[in-house]
Amino acid sequence: MEQRNLDKKIAGEEAVNFIKDGMTIGLGSGSTVNWMLQKLGELVKEGLQIKGIPSSRKTERLAKELGIPLTDFSKVAKIDLAIDGADEVDDYFNLLKGGGGSLVREKIIDTAADELIIIVDGSKIVPQLGAFPLPVEVLPFGWEITATTISKLGCVPKLRKIDKEVFVSDNGNYILDCQFNAMKQPQNLHEKLKQVVGVVETGLFINIASKVIVAKHKEIEILSK
Amino acid sequence: MEQRNLDKKIAGEEAVNFIKDGMTIGLGSGSTVNWMLQKLGELVKEGLQIKGIPSSRKTERLAKELGIPLTDFSKVAKIDLAIDGADEVDDYFNLLKGGGGSLVREKIIDTAADELIIIVDGSKIVPQLGAFPLPVEVLPFGWEITATTISKLGCVPKLRKIDKEVFVSDNGNYILDCQFNAMKQPQNLHEKLKQVVGVVETGLFINIASKVIVAKHKEIEILSK
Repeated sequence: MEQRNLDKKIAGEEAVNFIKDGMTIGLGSGSTVNWMLQKLGELVKEGLQIKGIPSSRKTERLAKELGIPLTDFSKVAKIDLAIDGADEVDDYFNLLKGGGGSLVREKIIDTAADELIIIVDGSKIVPQLGAFPLPVEVLPFGWEITATTISKLGCVPKLRKIDKEVFVSDNGNYILDCQFNAMKQPQNLHEKLKQVVGVVETGLFINIASKVIVAKHKEIEILSK
Repeated sequence: MEQRNLDKKIAGEEAVNFIKDGMTIGLGSGSTVNWMLQKLGELVKEGLQIKGIPSSRKTERLAKELGIPLTDFSKVAKIDLAIDGADEVDDYFNLLKGGGGSLVREKIIDTAADELIIIVDGSKIVPQLGAFPLPVEVLPFGWEITATTISKLGCVPKLRKIDKEVFVSDNGNYILDCQFNAMKQPQNLHEKLKQVVGVVETGLFINIASKVIVAKHKEIEILSK
């Protein structure tokens, strides 16, 4: 297995150690989370009693395949623990997320959880967020004018496409990938972006994560706030 | 015709006097706007050259029936003038909108316009916003937890239903009607609500309108900032 993928597996599997019997678990999205789900599926087969709330249709499908019992917000008002990946993590545990396009559901779940554990391979740890283009979910109606407004904050928003087709999120919205480069004040930038009419959510997760599990060259580090 | 409806007609018809040949016009939504559209349709038949951008499917249908040429944001980047209704208007021309459920598209259009004229009957002029429940558009996913977060700002959010069915906006989202009563700081309230994860937009239109046309007991008043 390629080293980075192996590190994702190690970080993902480590996270399940924080899952306790009876918990409601927010299930993030992405390749590292998929490794966590594999391990969680094994523990469920061995008798672990938990319920998961998936943050994307992809995660929902995989969790079902693995026999992980699922629930939703019509049945539970509280999530004990969320486990999610990230595209970038800075020293203050601020996150840049949304490369996979599930940022809004992830943020709803991660924010609702008592605790959020982020699982990443070492390449995701950065001194400053912003090398990765920031995904911003916007309404399809008037997205062109929303993009123009966003561009005034210092980037060139790019409408996300997959194979020449406009990418549509699980919420039926579009994603603008916004290359800001170094973000000196990510919270401030998030607040400005979120205020824009037509913006549904941004991929900046500020002050939400409380633990980061990093695997690098097979070595695990668990960082806590 | 009932007096209030007659006043809506008078205000709506007055607004078309501000429309000039060659303009791109943002077309709001609601019963007062419908009167404006009727009059605009007549002027188009008489040779007025304009293009409209509709803020709801209802407005789009009516405009088409009336022969008003339409365009969209893929073709124009600028709106010269938007004409829209409101549920409440205060002394500072701050608006509470969204009773009809089209608040987000209306806000995108009204914000994009060089000028926004609001047309109302006299009953909509209030000393302070908030007697009318504030519509807040939210994502269906996790709306329950979004409502809980909003309730902490001082209201009891009520999921909008029509004939026992959950109302779905033109953007595929839900609407929470939030009774705040007297709003002392509408801008501050809007900013706090908009920051909530899961909130798409609120019905508070702050500092957007520049003119208000009010008809009361058949008398017209044109208020300008």
